[in-house]
Amino acid sequence: MPIDPAAPLVLTAYAWVPSFVHGLVRDVRIRWACEEAGLAYAEDLIDVRAKPDGYAALQPWRQVPALRDGETRWFETGAILLHLGESHPALLPAGGQARADAISWLLGALNSVEPGAMELANIAFFARNEEWAALRRPSLEESISARLAPVARRLADRDWLAGAFSIADIAMVHVLMSIQRAGERAGDLVASDPVLAAYLARGQARPAWQRALADQIATFERNKPKES
Amino acid sequence: MPIDPAAPLVLTAYAWVPSFVHGLVRDVRIRWACEEAGLAYAEDLIDVRAKPDGYAALQPWRQVPALRDGETRWFETGAILLHLGESHPALLPAGGQARADAISWLLGALNSVEPGAMELANIAFFARNEEWAALRRPSLEESISARLAPVARRLADRDWLAGAFSIADIAMVHVLMSIQRAGERAGDLVASDPVLAAYLARGQARPAWQRALADQIATFERNKPKES
Repeated sequence: MPIDPAAPLVLTAYAWVPSFVHGLVRDVRIRWACEEAGLAYAEDLIDVRAKPDGYAALQPWRQVPALRDGETRWFETGAILLHLGESHPALLPAGGQARADAISWLLGALNSVEPGAMELANIAFFARNEEWAALRRPSLEESISARLAPVARRLADRDWLAGAFSIADIAMVHVLMSIQRAGERAGDLVASDPVLAAYLARGQARPAWQRALADQIATFERNKPKES
Repeated sequence: MPIDPAAPLVLTAYAWVPSFVHGLVRDVRIRWACEEAGLAYAEDLIDVRAKPDGYAALQPWRQVPALRDGETRWFETGAILLHLGESHPALLPAGGQARADAISWLLGALNSVEPGAMELANIAFFARNEEWAALRRPSLEESISARLAPVARRLADRDWLAGAFSIADIAMVHVLMSIQRAGERAGDLVASDPVLAAYLARGQARPAWQRALADQIATFERNKPKES
């Protein structure tokens, strides 16, 4: 079982969040990587409604995840995935074009695909009653679609972005999930493309993803506020 | 002189772009890193108006930069900066908390600050006549401002994000430049904060940045279309 309170790897996550973001909060990406690599980690759970004083020293924007690995502290899912990948070839090939592909596609997921997905989540969940949100949505969905087409082309003749499964797939599959969860026509951006739909299903079928998701949700359920 | 047609490092960049994006096109980040590390690179210049067939094999979204290093191909500025950093401690510390900080802040620049900056550039340059753009701008500037505050706090007592200058600063300083170039109130988001303004000035004062910018612009000038 990867969750072990004595592990030297300590993952900061929220104790509880409302159910509409279950599976989306990004500590699940790190849980997934740990499950893939068979790496034990401890949970350091914080209250999303009352973040601890001084938490900005671990995560400048006071978000999750952050990771302590012995004496060393990391933040940003991409940085943490790269760090875990350094010592685990099951997450990141040690060299050659496969390593270059995995790192390039990881950054592609985070800097070329996710920015649009973040704005879509903003429109779908937080700004949904703003006048600009409904006006912006069609062109944003078009631009996300243009970012997804090259991902589908890459996957037309391979299961995973860099050959074997890697941290690039953890990031990209999770970004696809967040696009799909934003619903309406956006759900179709993934579901209507047979290559992307199959890739998403392959990612979600991995036992490591299923354990990571179950563990995130179990934590939320265990720490559910009485009043909600 | 870092630009050397015989160098094993080959950077794909645009031959020419309109002047409103001079200094913003992101190959300048890689030129900057090469200048800092004293690393020779060759230019592979492509036409932004007629990208070569097959270019998607080097850069899935058919943008720049892409990098070939001998037999290995990289894309995404973050991935290329990490790759160059691996063998150059002047770009990325080899270990310890300084390395963790540099990689975490690099990803912070690309995944926590730049997404808002990209949407701002979209509003300022490409979608400026859309009805949603003017409506969205105030809340977007607020959200960028909230992303910048922790950067300013980090820099309150240090010159660079990870101690010594690193690839994290190349990314963050360049993202700040792009926010400032989006003008109107956004320019003030950086200029009105004394810590961020001083950081930006420190970055822009580096001879390596100045050579990188000059080389990008010299390339654009040399390949300026007759009709424009």
